[in-house]
Amino acid sequence: MSSTFGTLFRVTTFGESHCKGVGAIVDGVPPRMALTEADLQAQLDRRRPGQSRMTTDRKEQDRVTILSGTENGMTMGTPIGLFVANRDQRPGDYSEMSRVPRPSHADFAYQTKYGIRASSGGGRSSARETIGRVAGGAIAEKWLRETFGTEIVAWVSSVGEIDAEAVDPLAITREAVDANEIRCPDPAAAERMISAVAAAREAKDSIGGVVSCVCRNVPPGLGEPVFDKAEAMLAHAMLSIPATKGFEIGSGFSGARMRGSQHNDRFVAKAGGLGTLTNFSGGIQGGITNGEAICFRVAFKPPATIGLAQETVDFEGAPVVLEAKGRHDPCVVPRAIPIMEAMAALVLADLAMRQRMRAGT
Amino acid sequence: MSSTFGTLFRVTTFGESHCKGVGAIVDGVPPRMALTEADLQAQLDRRRPGQSRMTTDRKEQDRVTILSGTENGMTMGTPIGLFVANRDQRPGDYSEMSRVPRPSHADFAYQTKYGIRASSGGGRSSARETIGRVAGGAIAEKWLRETFGTEIVAWVSSVGEIDAEAVDPLAITREAVDANEIRCPDPAAAERMISAVAAAREAKDSIGGVVSCVCRNVPPGLGEPVFDKAEAMLAHAMLSIPATKGFEIGSGFSGARMRGSQHNDRFVAKAGGLGTLTNFSGGIQGGITNGEAICFRVAFKPPATIGLAQETVDFEGAPVVLEAKGRHDPCVVPRAIPIMEAMAALVLADLAMRQRMRAGT
Amino acid sequence: MSSTFGTLFRVTTFGESHCKGVGAIVDGVPPRMALTEADLQAQLDRRRPGQSRMTTDRKEQDRVTILSGTENGMTMGTPIGLFVANRDQRPGDYSEMSRVPRPSHADFAYQTKYGIRASSGGGRSSARETIGRVAGGAIAEKWLRETFGTEIVAWVSSVGEIDAEAVDPLAITREAVDANEIRCPDPAAAERMISAVAAAREAKDSIGGVVSCVCRNVPPGLGEPVFDKAEAMLAHAMLSIPATKGFEIGSGFSGARMRGSQHNDRFVAKAGGLGTLTNFSGGIQGGITNGEAICFRVAFKPPATIGLAQETVDFEGAPVVLEAKGRHDPCVVPRAIPIMEAMAALVLADLAMRQRMRAGT
Amino acid sequence: MSSTFGTLFRVTTFGESHCKGVGAIVDGVPPRMALTEADLQAQLDRRRPGQSRMTTDRKEQDRVTILSGTENGMTMGTPIGLFVANRDQRPGDYSEMSRVPRPSHADFAYQTKYGIRASSGGGRSSARETIGRVAGGAIAEKWLRETFGTEIVAWVSSVGEIDAEAVDPLAITREAVDANEIRCPDPAAAERMISAVAAAREAKDSIGGVVSCVCRNVPPGLGEPVFDKAEAMLAHAMLSIPATKGFEIGSGFSGARMRGSQHNDRFVAKAGGLGTLTNFSGGIQGGITNGEAICFRVAFKPPATIGLAQETVDFEGAPVVLEAKGRHDPCVVPRAIPIMEAMAALVLADLAMRQRMRAGT
Repeated sequence: MSSTFGTLFRVTTFGESHCKGVGAIVDGVPPRMALTEADLQAQLDRRRPGQSRMTTDRKEQDRVTILSGTENGMTMGTPIGLFVANRDQRPGDYSEMSRVPRPSHADFAYQTKYGIRASSGGGRSSARETIGRVAGGAIAEKWLRETFGTEIVAWVSSVGEIDAEAVDPLAITREAVDANEIRCPDPAAAERMISAVAAAREAKDSIGGVVSCVCRNVPPGLGEPVFDKAEAMLAHAMLSIPATKGFEIGSGFSGARMRGSQHNDRFVAKAGGLGTLTNFSGGIQGGITNGEAICFRVAFKPPATIGLAQETVDFEGAPVVLEAKGRHDPCVVPRAIPIMEAMAALVLADLAMRQRMRAGT
Repeated sequence: MSSTFGTLFRVTTFGESHCKGVGAIVDGVPPRMALTEADLQAQLDRRRPGQSRMTTDRKEQDRVTILSGTENGMTMGTPIGLFVANRDQRPGDYSEMSRVPRPSHADFAYQTKYGIRASSGGGRSSARETIGRVAGGAIAEKWLRETFGTEIVAWVSSVGEIDAEAVDPLAITREAVDANEIRCPDPAAAERMISAVAAAREAKDSIGGVVSCVCRNVPPGLGEPVFDKAEAMLAHAMLSIPATKGFEIGSGFSGARMRGSQHNDRFVAKAGGLGTLTNFSGGIQGGITNGEAICFRVAFKPPATIGLAQETVDFEGAPVVLEAKGRHDPCVVPRAIPIMEAMAALVLADLAMRQRMRAGT
Repeated sequence: MSSTFGTLFRVTTFGESHCKGVGAIVDGVPPRMALTEADLQAQLDRRRPGQSRMTTDRKEQDRVTILSGTENGMTMGTPIGLFVANRDQRPGDYSEMSRVPRPSHADFAYQTKYGIRASSGGGRSSARETIGRVAGGAIAEKWLRETFGTEIVAWVSSVGEIDAEAVDPLAITREAVDANEIRCPDPAAAERMISAVAAAREAKDSIGGVVSCVCRNVPPGLGEPVFDKAEAMLAHAMLSIPATKGFEIGSGFSGARMRGSQHNDRFVAKAGGLGTLTNFSGGIQGGITNGEAICFRVAFKPPATIGLAQETVDFEGAPVVLEAKGRHDPCVVPRAIPIMEAMAALVLADLAMRQRMRAGT
Repeated sequence: MSSTFGTLFRVTTFGESHCKGVGAIVDGVPPRMALTEADLQAQLDRRRPGQSRMTTDRKEQDRVTILSGTENGMTMGTPIGLFVANRDQRPGDYSEMSRVPRPSHADFAYQTKYGIRASSGGGRSSARETIGRVAGGAIAEKWLRETFGTEIVAWVSSVGEIDAEAVDPLAITREAVDANEIRCPDPAAAERMISAVAAAREAKDSIGGVVSCVCRNVPPGLGEPVFDKAEAMLAHAMLSIPATKGFEIGSGFSGARMRGSQHNDRFVAKAGGLGTLTNFSGGIQGGITNGEAICFRVAFKPPATIGLAQETVDFEGAPVVLEAKGRHDPCVVPRAIPIMEAMAALVLADLAMRQRMRAGT
């Protein structure tokens, strides 16, 4: 279980790295919305490996097919089946895995949980699982955009020890983000980040990073008090992405160092009602969106697969030296961007649906 | 909706700060477990305000009553109803709220969402809502302790700019945590934290902080891959606690600055199977517990209610200067400890139940 | 688990027959709806035992208290806690139960499932559990009535072999139903039913019956295709009521004996759009309400508790002759009426909420 | 939403009659179970149209492909994606549907609900949707069979006014059911049923029927008290099948005509514990299985699509005479058998999983 995310707008994913393909069923999509494969492909292309020196060389087309739920390019209100075939399968690369659990991979945990695991690739812990999320999230995002004008943009704000200069969350665009291959809108920092990734690759090592995300034009009133607060749903969504280690919203951990008189977001009159002067709250107060931009950051660890020799033990506890072969991302943050945008869209669409039922009262 | 947390072990809370009381229904509690009010009261007492100079002076007994689900001190497998009466109601303190949304409070967001809100206190956003969680979590924790020997301990690791020295997560106890009123097991840091809180109170201001938590003796194999990863459920649970701004597990945001060769947790032979030499993963790999201690940290913002004058606007947008009166916590982190422990227990009990169905296979 | 019913408008019940009380948390109630205890008490009074010769003599007040979720008689959009204290506890009546599972009761099944069961009364299988449903259903019904003008009326259509004459589902009222103590609007049949119940009581036996229900002014478009069809949700709700053995909607089992040319409901122009000339569909087509009256019937078995001597065995398999003492309903159908109305209201309110999210599209 | 059924063992279906195909994701399947397409195909073949004179002539292969979740013929504990391509699409047959809602079809209800509907075929209300259920149910059934020895057999017990002689639910087999094309194990009645269906076809009409089902070797203790009683889940599952109008378990509606002294199932010592002498309860007491055979019956209406001319109105209310062309089942009950068996298996597997979490206590 747990391959389903969402209450009303819900995506259920299937597929692992080396079976016939991956996909999703997206249920709860409103009827009478124009939708074709082209609406989904752009974000899938941004997620796809092999786009730049930053990512693995594995070449896959990742063309999505809509299996059901639309007719003549319109949604019917019925579940939308999505499928992307797996093409490039090289099971031979993974043979050592059968007796040695790779450090900081899911091998040991899966084996303990299920008593079995995929003999090649990471099974459901593979990055390919996120294809279903990105495709489903693209539908959610299109609906949010057309209904509320919502814009969701994520960007790389740090790689290793290199931090980007502050980015204006109210102005940043996907075009600016995609202007370089590391997807950091601070060009000077981007250069250094690209070098850092290249150095990690050169050293047969990997490197972590942080991705920031903003959601603009989110209507106020979304988020369900108590357990399904908007920030709790976002945290859930983000920490479900492979390789994530942390989430912060608004002021985040730096807010814990502040005083209330600094941190409180005072209200001011704005066009269309009240707004806040500052946004340490990150667009959410009491678990409910307040109409300001939702801003959050997610930490990604360095990928666990590295070419460097690692001392570890096999499943029987015997010492082993492991050296990964094959193709591996030295840094996941550029490709994490469309995944984070997709998960944010899924959360917001679901919360918007949940709020709609109160609309008529 | 969303007053329910959990899939199999689930708690549903009700009540706001100034109605007849607060409570919870805990469903999915295994039968034949010894359980009386005394099992729940200890953590409720730790959560209760008025215990020290650190917290509000509001005096409440917060005595819990088990309404249903047990007979002769044993659980029956049926839902356990829990109730705590509200005693100390002073609605007069909150009169200005009706026309002025308090900065960084939930007033504006609730009004926008529901078109109505509690005329006094914070309604469901009040800290009293967490009583139901603490009571429900105490049941979960008792079951985990008796079934697996699980121990959950949280402590204050920073207040404002003051950081505690590193604490050994494998050794820390609740007794050590409760040795001082700020609940920081580093005595020197604790003294400075207490002073910092006192200074904030003196200044009619408030101050933020960070709480760390460790869960020991958690069986490996818990956590549902993809959307309900163990860390995703923990992040969801923690960000659902009022005033939280961030969550990190294991290496957290500092892991994003590391290389894979530093960050990978190499396997070693341990009594009873494999373990890891380091624990940057924080006890979870691929969303599944690996048997190592689960370690995470949660950021709390400074409380929004401060006595200092604040320039803001009323619901109509007219400028107003707001000065909170009455009793308010200048710092929530000491009282957040039993709430975090309760939410962690609810997550782990639910995941343990979800894993049990695979046990016989 | 499973003490919760509904997706968006959801009720979670707690309590058994002989603990402190029973109640419910109703989540998803729209805000800004006038609501006081008086709105709930009427249906609780109709459910209460001891109203007539038809039911057990047990006297209980069953006064409901709203614990949370309203202020000044208005709902806040927050969960509504409901509680009814247990007053009349006579555990002594049930002593033999500890070693003999009563035939056709839940004793054996509970013991097998949980390894423990309530030492007195039926625990969660007691009819008192339905108090929480009736109270929660009264809120759902009030919202449906105020929003759509929905009317829900159930009546006794048979007791044992005595069938009432056909009742006009478009005209029947609760007043007409309550005109006699068996709650059958056919006065001649009602007389005979009352005699049949009296005869069963006299014979220390019990007797079954059928309750019909109509829901009028239900908007078209409710019901979720595939698994949560409106009739599937109603069947689920009705078969969750103790002592039920069957459910049929519209033509029901008699429809299985018909030809399509007889059974098809032809469309005709009606005020406000299309309607159907006949209503063999029972107001639902393809799982979705069509605006016609929803008509269904539910079969209730004769109560299992009878005073007549019964040959059976104890938990060890040794022969025993069992004779129930104490107070018992010889026929449950009159009291089942408000429970069925409550469950129907819960289903329709939930489906209406689920449809609302599509309203704006 | 609502394309998902089940809590722990859950199936999510997608696809309509005339898109690329239909399928399902089955989540919660235990790991390390042998599973290939051959395990699913048998029941799909029994469901497939075009097998006999009894059903539509439409020829489809309905070959299922497992897209994910297995490796080397073993389940991995991960979601199993299933797909069946649509081959035989004749959209031309349905042109009149665009302006005339077919009587007792879902056209009007879907249009009202969604503001759009499939231009050909029934969309999600098409019988092809049940392919995903049958495939998913076959997995559930295999697991139940291998784990508990559970056997599920359904058979036609009436067609129109023709009733089969009583069948022994403890002895009936699928082989006996499939011995004739109407799938009624009473050969004399089967002959008359076949003639009745032929007569209905001849008359361009259709005819209803009843299907009985037995589940043997179901462990005691399954079913969640209160809302998710075993019979409530079965009723939900069965009424979610297209064209169903009623459900009864054990004594059903005839039980409502009985006295308690007749109806009570007295306990007797049996090998392995207690059993009951009679089984009016239908294998379930207090919502929980008691180890006896689960017996229930489902009423199916005559198919709405008939060749006979029908007077009705179009969407604007103007009178129209409708005559269906093309291929249509005059009677659905033979093909309903594998669908009912699948839904029963899904319910029981889910309840078994839910009970497993209590196993260790």
